[in-house]
Amino acid sequence: MENELIRYFRQRVPGHRLLEVGLGDDAAVLRLAGRQYVLTVDMLSDHVDFELAEVDPRRVGRKLLAVNLSDIAAMAARPVAAVVALLLPRSGGMELAKALYEGLLPLAEKYDLAIAGGDTNSWDGPLAASVTILGETTERGPLTRSGARPGDQILVTGWFGGSILGKHLDFQPRVDEALLLHQRYDLHAGIDCSDGLALDLARLAEQSGCGAAVDLAAVPVAEDAHRLARQLADGSTPLDHALADGEDFELILAVPPDQARRILADQPLGVPISRIGQFVEKPGLWEQTTNGQLRPLSAVGWEHKFHG
Amino acid sequence: MENELIRYFRQRVPGHRLLEVGLGDDAAVLRLAGRQYVLTVDMLSDHVDFELAEVDPRRVGRKLLAVNLSDIAAMAARPVAAVVALLLPRSGGMELAKALYEGLLPLAEKYDLAIAGGDTNSWDGPLAASVTILGETTERGPLTRSGARPGDQILVTGWFGGSILGKHLDFQPRVDEALLLHQRYDLHAGIDCSDGLALDLARLAEQSGCGAAVDLAAVPVAEDAHRLARQLADGSTPLDHALADGEDFELILAVPPDQARRILADQPLGVPISRIGQFVEKPGLWEQTTNGQLRPLSAVGWEHKFHG
Repeated sequence: MENELIRYFRQRVPGHRLLEVGLGDDAAVLRLAGRQYVLTVDMLSDHVDFELAEVDPRRVGRKLLAVNLSDIAAMAARPVAAVVALLLPRSGGMELAKALYEGLLPLAEKYDLAIAGGDTNSWDGPLAASVTILGETTERGPLTRSGARPGDQILVTGWFGGSILGKHLDFQPRVDEALLLHQRYDLHAGIDCSDGLALDLARLAEQSGCGAAVDLAAVPVAEDAHRLARQLADGSTPLDHALADGEDFELILAVPPDQARRILADQPLGVPISRIGQFVEKPGLWEQTTNGQLRPLSAVGWEHKFHG
Repeated sequence: MENELIRYFRQRVPGHRLLEVGLGDDAAVLRLAGRQYVLTVDMLSDHVDFELAEVDPRRVGRKLLAVNLSDIAAMAARPVAAVVALLLPRSGGMELAKALYEGLLPLAEKYDLAIAGGDTNSWDGPLAASVTILGETTERGPLTRSGARPGDQILVTGWFGGSILGKHLDFQPRVDEALLLHQRYDLHAGIDCSDGLALDLARLAEQSGCGAAVDLAAVPVAEDAHRLARQLADGSTPLDHALADGEDFELILAVPPDQARRILADQPLGVPISRIGQFVEKPGLWEQTTNGQLRPLSAVGWEHKFHG
């Protein structure tokens, strides 16, 4: 459905003179009074993005904000202000709302984010919540999905796979990491990995009009990807999970070769940065084989993990 | 619940140096790069704010945006950009999303509003949707809820009551009206009437640290308030509906006497402006009796009309 809707939106939703980047990136870029701002919203709901019955609601509240901060990070922008809309189940809604905020507020404070307002309602359904963040770009401008060029290296932060075991709630949005990299090095494009490494990398390549070739041996596989493969015992490998699981919320970056070498040598972040391949002329997602061939790689991603 | 949560938010959610008006007004006011912006979110859902089974979904889509525009109007700000988050029922979600946008886009165009982005998901529950609007204040600054002074006149646009019969979907957000009044006259405070004339007027008075005395004979009662009273035949009067029904989305304004006289004489809007009383020293909501006495008036408002 997502793809058909995106096509509909692209045809039907008009551009606007203030809109420098519109639908289809991690956040919109608006030009207001000569400055660039980014604006993004995410809607999360019980049974889709978390199972409220199984986790501390403060972790859910933290996630509501963190997924949004990850979109701001993907644009290499600074978060400024957020508004929070909650649709609460009638029973226990009040205590739930407080717990969500108790999880959300420390993260807001960490990023000096103003909680500017909210809308709180109750209904007979499960929890649904949206967070909208307004951010501002740095003097380097926004990092978009469309700037990758053939020859650019694919760099990623952290590890991938198995986030369902906990990281999907407790991940660190890479806000500071993106700002630091964008300031010190020349980056061409970026995306945050929310729907799976393979799928989000394919999106970045597609929006840049090129392809991406992955060196599968170089993909940093999370310990939880190994653990999940063992738990499931369904024939899936840790690498499958690293490629297809969603919600790692790590950065995927397109970086010209000289800059990539510097970043890999400097390792300027608290989290490791790995090279997992390069962008190529040929559109699509590819596995780079050891003999230099390109073999098609499936861009399968995560959808509604909690629905089995 | 709402009041307890508001108390919680006021205690727990910190202020921020960028936040000139925070929680508790129709929209937050942010100062960015020397300019003032307003930011507001609303979450609407099936069976609470509309009955999707009974109405054209385009009218629902229009309402999603219109309630938000009404908050921007209440601040006498200009709408700039919106983001839309949809949580769609799995069955027919795609067609529903398109229909919602078909209703929403003409209103966005009317106000030159950039639809900057969105998030579209599906789940096993009913439709829930949030719209966030970023606006900018004019050189007159924002119109807040806290500026009413004893002696200020209570002016309102349009008519009140019975919006459930249709106006709650098809109302005109008073964006242009608020901008015009705020530019030509000195207004002290404003709010949009979403939860009922009595309740929203009481909120405006409370946040201004004064009271409000209403001349009940002067309240402009909508034709639909009469119709609804007849239909219900439960002893409620048209005036009861005008005071207590929600979702008229008209403006309630606090205006100093000389300016109020000018506005009432000029009638500069396409919709009538009426004087329905004045703000007084004594906190609370009052009926102004013909002999000049103040009699307590109940600040009862609308809640979950569709839940009987």
